[in-house]
Amino acid sequence: MKIDINSDMGEGFGVYQLCDDAALMEVVSSANIACGFHAGDPAIMTRMVRLAHAHGVGIGAHPGFPDRQGFGRKELPYCPEEICQQVIYQIGALRAIAQAEGARVAHVSFHAAMGTMINRDDALAAQVMRAIAHIDPTLIIFSQPDTLIERAAAAAGLPTLTLFLADRAYDANGRLVPRGVPGAVITGEQAVRARVRQFLHQGTVTTLEGERLPIRARSILIHSDTPGSVELARQVRSEINANGDSIAPAAEVLAQ
Amino acid sequence: MKIDINSDMGEGFGVYQLCDDAALMEVVSSANIACGFHAGDPAIMTRMVRLAHAHGVGIGAHPGFPDRQGFGRKELPYCPEEICQQVIYQIGALRAIAQAEGARVAHVSFHAAMGTMINRDDALAAQVMRAIAHIDPTLIIFSQPDTLIERAAAAAGLPTLTLFLADRAYDANGRLVPRGVPGAVITGEQAVRARVRQFLHQGTVTTLEGERLPIRARSILIHSDTPGSVELARQVRSEINANGDSIAPAAEVLAQ
Amino acid sequence: MKIDINSDMGEGFGVYQLCDDAALMEVVSSANIACGFHAGDPAIMTRMVRLAHAHGVGIGAHPGFPDRQGFGRKELPYCPEEICQQVIYQIGALRAIAQAEGARVAHVSFHAAMGTMINRDDALAAQVMRAIAHIDPTLIIFSQPDTLIERAAAAAGLPTLTLFLADRAYDANGRLVPRGVPGAVITGEQAVRARVRQFLHQGTVTTLEGERLPIRARSILIHSDTPGSVELARQVRSEINANGDSIAPAAEVLAQ
Amino acid sequence: MKIDINSDMGEGFGVYQLCDDAALMEVVSSANIACGFHAGDPAIMTRMVRLAHAHGVGIGAHPGFPDRQGFGRKELPYCPEEICQQVIYQIGALRAIAQAEGARVAHVSFHAAMGTMINRDDALAAQVMRAIAHIDPTLIIFSQPDTLIERAAAAAGLPTLTLFLADRAYDANGRLVPRGVPGAVITGEQAVRARVRQFLHQGTVTTLEGERLPIRARSILIHSDTPGSVELARQVRSEINANGDSIAPAAEVLAQ
Repeated sequence: MKIDINSDMGEGFGVYQLCDDAALMEVVSSANIACGFHAGDPAIMTRMVRLAHAHGVGIGAHPGFPDRQGFGRKELPYCPEEICQQVIYQIGALRAIAQAEGARVAHVSFHAAMGTMINRDDALAAQVMRAIAHIDPTLIIFSQPDTLIERAAAAAGLPTLTLFLADRAYDANGRLVPRGVPGAVITGEQAVRARVRQFLHQGTVTTLEGERLPIRARSILIHSDTPGSVELARQVRSEINANGDSIAPAAEVLAQ
Repeated sequence: MKIDINSDMGEGFGVYQLCDDAALMEVVSSANIACGFHAGDPAIMTRMVRLAHAHGVGIGAHPGFPDRQGFGRKELPYCPEEICQQVIYQIGALRAIAQAEGARVAHVSFHAAMGTMINRDDALAAQVMRAIAHIDPTLIIFSQPDTLIERAAAAAGLPTLTLFLADRAYDANGRLVPRGVPGAVITGEQAVRARVRQFLHQGTVTTLEGERLPIRARSILIHSDTPGSVELARQVRSEINANGDSIAPAAEVLAQ
Repeated sequence: MKIDINSDMGEGFGVYQLCDDAALMEVVSSANIACGFHAGDPAIMTRMVRLAHAHGVGIGAHPGFPDRQGFGRKELPYCPEEICQQVIYQIGALRAIAQAEGARVAHVSFHAAMGTMINRDDALAAQVMRAIAHIDPTLIIFSQPDTLIERAAAAAGLPTLTLFLADRAYDANGRLVPRGVPGAVITGEQAVRARVRQFLHQGTVTTLEGERLPIRARSILIHSDTPGSVELARQVRSEINANGDSIAPAAEVLAQ
Repeated sequence: MKIDINSDMGEGFGVYQLCDDAALMEVVSSANIACGFHAGDPAIMTRMVRLAHAHGVGIGAHPGFPDRQGFGRKELPYCPEEICQQVIYQIGALRAIAQAEGARVAHVSFHAAMGTMINRDDALAAQVMRAIAHIDPTLIIFSQPDTLIERAAAAAGLPTLTLFLADRAYDANGRLVPRGVPGAVITGEQAVRARVRQFLHQGTVTTLEGERLPIRARSILIHSDTPGSVELARQVRSEINANGDSIAPAAEVLAQ
């Protein structure tokens, strides 16, 4: 089986950098590249596209709100049409930069508050997905399984790829436990590794309540901004290989 | 003969607006739309694209430096590669927004300091034009006649359209007289109109020194941020019609 | 009786300007100067301070959220402490610019969403007012009468000045009718003038429901960004003079 | 003898941080705090002021150009008056934040391109220093010895404190060797430490050409954004202590 490892990349700005993007790019198979709104700029985007292209890593747009100060984590009162326009603008910008480098954008993964808002509003999700499908119906939409984003993408005819978050606790309904709740974030390296192993072997996750729950996912998300993300990604990679599976970008995972 | 009237459009930001874009859009045949760096944002760009598309006005990218405070008028010490990346990013963003509206970007017109810097540096001009040609070799490059931009665009295989500035004085070499020089800007409505008439009838401009000079141009640029720009554009339009010529977007002017 | 006329000023940015600040400065007696967050920059602030100082106009800080794109009109999820810090930062910046011009900041008037949020949250209002009182207990706080802002300012020992909005409808409780409601904004020049006259003669306003309500206010606010604001301010001025009252900055109004 | 150790602090933005400010604050005696233009925001500034105040560290303004993208390292074509206004704005903002925390701003250290431009232009330096002296004549100006900044500050009646850069090579005239030149930056920990020792013992620096040159300085600058800056600052501190000198903020150094 082919499985994808994805991470948010290029989330720097000017002199600032959030993680060692170059090192991480050697480990992941899909890169969600910030597009200049919550983070990123044309120079960083170009660097990310080149690195991804050189390593055979799938290139994805990672659109967010135009809010560098808040890193796109604040929910901002934009109307649905404005959010659509922001998504299209950012995908288009990355697409041109990829094209200039002889590469192409293969997927879209929404950043933070923009993703949260789209995922909570049926009509907004439908409008965004239709807009994306209109400019490129082959773009693969990344999402948690069984979410509004997944359903709206499918309804708009867009391919989807579902994510497993190895370092986040799930509840009995397969939803992520909110960050505030004790135990919501799994920090122990061994614990994370064990969760990846269980996911690969059994396709399950043990919920916060202690139940085993099937988890439908084909890509493992590594949070690039947590300390040790590169090492964690390496371990996820070695777990996948140890399990006899292979690592591949989203498009290949879907094509298998 | 077909001739184009072009103007910089959508150079607002949030609550700010520089001119009555909607009124101007009814008069011009090509719109150079700000792409979110020196001015503009996804919402304004979408509005401009819709207006242009509805009026049969040619849609162009108007890339500038990422400097809202200085309105892209300050020369900023970016390296050639960064300038290329900024140009590609902005064209790509507008292209996606146009595509989402069922329209397409037909031309590129550089804004202020970015244009000045490209026009002064052979290697930079060549690099920018090759990058543009790489992402879309049909994009028409707007420029003054006999400039580095025109030559580099042609060398990169890009179509070009040359501009006549009806409200600016020319010197004996056909160059614009710098703004600081007395007489550099022609403000009288009748004077501007007479210059347009002379240009249409004879293809000449009277230089600051009083000589008639042939001027090779196929589009008349109206500075949208000067007071009375809409009325001026209307007069240019009526002059063109009175002369028996017709007004058409850049692509049609080149195709005739 | 002395009465103040105040208006938001310097709400431009780079090439952008919202109103004819120079003309308005000749008519008002208190200027609420944008401090570089929702609008304004050091150059504009300096210009405003000079104009105000030259005309004997009271200088006030007009702090808002750091959101040029949304002009400070979006409620942003900042925590109370961050809002305090933003207020103090902006007052301090204007204070230094005023000092450099031999002038001083006399009052504070909150902008848009920042004001709305402070006015809705007792604890936030108290925290902000204590912070202001700590850096300068003579700063006069502008507010609607009977609001959290007025009460919190008084509790913190800060002087307050209450506003009458001549171009906005009031309800039976003396609150502003929200902008969405039909009749909320009074646009007719004669109607506004009549309301000013009634306020000056009787100290009342006729509510949307048609009742006469006493209105406790000592300053009339002119919205600078509505078309015709300069002319409207002139009429308010002439009404005040016709009524035998005199126009004076906030500090003089309070001192009488 | 008392000597100061200073470092640029709070040069973060939103989620971004350039160095471990909290650790560095335990080692330095003067903090040059970014004021929201090239870096910093009201929340970070408040944090820095609190840390400095708690550790008895001198609080300084570190004004720069309004250019987050370029981190204030690009020379921007602002006119002298605009630069003055930007300096005053930033000092005022920090001053109010310090006051709100029961602290005060003691010094000013210019950032990057803003400092370079002021240091190259006699008239600009004079204008900036007069503006600073006007708002607070006790502010200590940090500078290299024998520079335009030092002379202009003294001429405006402002106290000055001169800097020694332990990790940068000097030429025969006591000027810093430009960063591009081989050997301009001293990276070896032992080499830096030896230079500090020599400076403390003999008051000299060995130039790039190998000569010993007297260096008139009373504060050692640690570049906070170089890797290992905290450890380097600790070593400088231990060298000073080993030499029998004591570490003190700028004001105490000048008062001894």
